[in-house]
Amino acid sequence: MPTPVKSVLPVVLLGCGGVGRHLLRHIVSCRPLHADQGVSIRVVGVADSSSLLVAEDVYSSGLDDALLTHLCAAKAAGSPLSSLLGQGHFQLFQNPEARSKVIDAATTLGRTTDLNDISDFELNFHISLPHTYSISGLVLVDCSATYDTVSLLKDAVDHGCCTVLANKKPLTGAYEDFQKLVSNFRRLRFESTVGAGLPVIASVTRIIASGDPVSRIVGSLSGTLGYVMSELEDGKRFSEVVKTAKSLGYTEPDPRDDLGGMDVARKALILARLLGQQISMENISVESLYPIELGPDTVSTKDFLESGLVQLDKTMEDRVKAASSRGNVLRYVCEIESTGCQVGLKELPKDSALGRLRGSDNVVEIYSRCYESSPLVIQGAGAGNDTTAAGVLADLIDLQDLFQKTA
Amino acid sequence: MPTPVKSVLPVVLLGCGGVGRHLLRHIVSCRPLHADQGVSIRVVGVADSSSLLVAEDVYSSGLDDALLTHLCAAKAAGSPLSSLLGQGHFQLFQNPEARSKVIDAATTLGRTTDLNDISDFELNFHISLPHTYSISGLVLVDCSATYDTVSLLKDAVDHGCCTVLANKKPLTGAYEDFQKLVSNFRRLRFESTVGAGLPVIASVTRIIASGDPVSRIVGSLSGTLGYVMSELEDGKRFSEVVKTAKSLGYTEPDPRDDLGGMDVARKALILARLLGQQISMENISVESLYPIELGPDTVSTKDFLESGLVQLDKTMEDRVKAASSRGNVLRYVCEIESTGCQVGLKELPKDSALGRLRGSDNVVEIYSRCYESSPLVIQGAGAGNDTTAAGVLADLIDLQDLFQKTA
Repeated sequence: MPTPVKSVLPVVLLGCGGVGRHLLRHIVSCRPLHADQGVSIRVVGVADSSSLLVAEDVYSSGLDDALLTHLCAAKAAGSPLSSLLGQGHFQLFQNPEARSKVIDAATTLGRTTDLNDISDFELNFHISLPHTYSISGLVLVDCSATYDTVSLLKDAVDHGCCTVLANKKPLTGAYEDFQKLVSNFRRLRFESTVGAGLPVIASVTRIIASGDPVSRIVGSLSGTLGYVMSELEDGKRFSEVVKTAKSLGYTEPDPRDDLGGMDVARKALILARLLGQQISMENISVESLYPIELGPDTVSTKDFLESGLVQLDKTMEDRVKAASSRGNVLRYVCEIESTGCQVGLKELPKDSALGRLRGSDNVVEIYSRCYESSPLVIQGAGAGNDTTAAGVLADLIDLQDLFQKTA
Repeated sequence: MPTPVKSVLPVVLLGCGGVGRHLLRHIVSCRPLHADQGVSIRVVGVADSSSLLVAEDVYSSGLDDALLTHLCAAKAAGSPLSSLLGQGHFQLFQNPEARSKVIDAATTLGRTTDLNDISDFELNFHISLPHTYSISGLVLVDCSATYDTVSLLKDAVDHGCCTVLANKKPLTGAYEDFQKLVSNFRRLRFESTVGAGLPVIASVTRIIASGDPVSRIVGSLSGTLGYVMSELEDGKRFSEVVKTAKSLGYTEPDPRDDLGGMDVARKALILARLLGQQISMENISVESLYPIELGPDTVSTKDFLESGLVQLDKTMEDRVKAASSRGNVLRYVCEIESTGCQVGLKELPKDSALGRLRGSDNVVEIYSRCYESSPLVIQGAGAGNDTTAAGVLADLIDLQDLFQKTA
């Protein structure tokens, strides 16, 4: 006997590049698994940077799986959503209209059963809804990598929607934006913003909820910089290691995007704010692994790789050796304490969880009353579209109790 | 402006020894924190092995914090619940009546708003309820260490109650009992049954929900045996290490309760069943660190400590040396794979998360598609009343969405 559907989660996905595309694939391939658990994820809309594709009949079926599979293939091939016209049943809205259509959907689906809203929705989308169906809300999932989604997310929160973020930027802008997004904390999930699928946010949230005050978090949250620092330990040259990391696909096209530390700083800020610190990016001291003279404003990527990087070898070698002479290793870490938040190189004991780190794994050490002398350590792959999307899907499933069907 | 109360969780606690007592303390001390989040935990009943103490007015206030504090002090001093008579407003029922009173409460509070049930409850408890209050369910929390709670927990599940377990035994008995307890998986939490407060169950559940199949779990889940094995690595004698562990309070009064591996086997069984394996204790191969001739049926604890243990030194020394000669270390681990579940000594590479383990920390390595070459590792203190109780409280708070007040 099939499990009765207990929860239906209508989802609008913002951003269908790498992570978003993998999320859609996971959603489609997990249908039987989730059906066994009585959960159904209904993708009612997908947006890329220029347009929004919306199901014709949001309330009964969402976008069908064949279309979602087409969509993933199109995005993987670099085509825009608009290239899908004629390949299924949906409506397509271009920006800026697309944005207002998402808000329309959010307004209507977000935790309201007011029939006036439904009528508005029908008018907006030119469809007729079966009024016997109970409306249970909407989840806005942000897998984009832009600040531009903030106002949409805030509007969604106002309309009682749930939000799931893989995108770090909305949580690392103005403190007021963060405050707004977390104002209904139970309707927000953002596990994949830190350490991809690693259960860092969930664990910190659990510890805080149990009244066990977190005093310190130290983490290596860049797979790229983790790889670089552990290779340096073996005596390799900084310039060589960075070039190898680039050739392995570990770095951004311009490695300075990793070496500058801003991505780590954003993760640190999210963790610091989760601990209740009312701080912003300007309060975090961030150490860049390249000097301002070699920055992208003055030196091209090509020149940086060919002649800039080698200028850094000597300094880095000296620092690694100095650490080693004290029995320590250098790691690029974020460190969050009540006294402040720092991101940069730190000497750490060889036999600590962070000191033992090899390769591109992320590691987070959490110190609290219960984990005082020996921290709670979480370690594993902290990047990759597949893993990040898996974390987003786990977040979605974790919201199911807020989407229980009322008979 | 105070946060409005969004969720009220009525709780009946079974077992108020070490973990249960710490849980009550945490609940009381976390009131301001939880109030800020709009959550209120209402302890409506507390049971020890002989009696049940129930609030006079279950629906408006539960047992008051002064009484709970008295109760913790009484239990810490080794007094039974009945010693509290006259020290507050409550009703006390002795076994076997106590058991039926819990079921009465579960029947009534569990997800039903049927006024007939409320009347039954009023009749049973000789109280009158304010009918304007909406009933939102009950959480039965099992912090006991007995199989005897199983039938009560199963009845509670039948009545739609939520259950939170620190007690491993109900999940490690007959497979049918496990099946019944997990039948409404979203209303069950049991994080503290494995690794105390460490987020092991929550992480495995997340990974499974995201469609990332877990292929293998390897863990060192006994702080005692973890300590023993890492001390042996330094060349110490088995008998000495066990006696030191006992003097540090790391072992049970009879260390054979740890050395036999049954506690680890119970945790392994819970993890294996969580992965979907329909197995029972008899399907797990468990290696005991003492032979049957030195078992409690033939040798007293005193004799085992004084003359039994030393007989094991040579064999253990040989095994540790043999492992070391291959560059490995010995660890007492559980290993769960699709092909089976084993608990016992295993040679592991020195530089694996398990091989590097020192002291009494627990470590769990989880392998899946996303964590294939390098596992997801969770490490930290895996025992202690404070930490275990914190895990139970985090589980309780995690259920809050099922207990939202309807205005």
